[in-house]
Amino acid sequence: MDFLAVVGANVRTLREARGLPQDELAHLAGVHATYLSGIETGKRNLTLKVLERLASALRVPETDLVIRR
Amino acid sequence: MDFLAVVGANVRTLREARGLPQDELAHLAGVHATYLSGIETGKRNLTLKVLERLASALRVPETDLVIRR
Repeated sequence: MDFLAVVGANVRTLREARGLPQDELAHLAGVHATYLSGIETGKRNLTLKVLERLASALRVPETDLVIRR
Repeated sequence: MDFLAVVGANVRTLREARGLPQDELAHLAGVHATYLSGIETGKRNLTLKVLERLASALRVPETDLVIRR
């Protein structure tokens, strides 16, 4: 699987496991909900700063978001 | 440590462990040597596409570059 798709799937899986709607995680991470949607579908080439904010909002280490499961 | 500094230190440590000069890793990863220098010192907010290319050039999983050691 394409790396951006891997990261997006990880974000979505962890968000759903926490019962967080997209707009709530977007708010917690300080990104727009449309942008988060693009991340989750592997369409956005996010930066490490955004990755860090998503990991922090999901309360996981950054490695959990980039691991190929 | 700041997340970008963590990633930069990981890149530098792995590069040096392989005996690769900066310009050689930069060439392998398809980035400018000056840009790689900025990454290694934690000054550049790189994208996941660049992280992926660095991991591939260093022959490690992406998780090895983002782990907080």
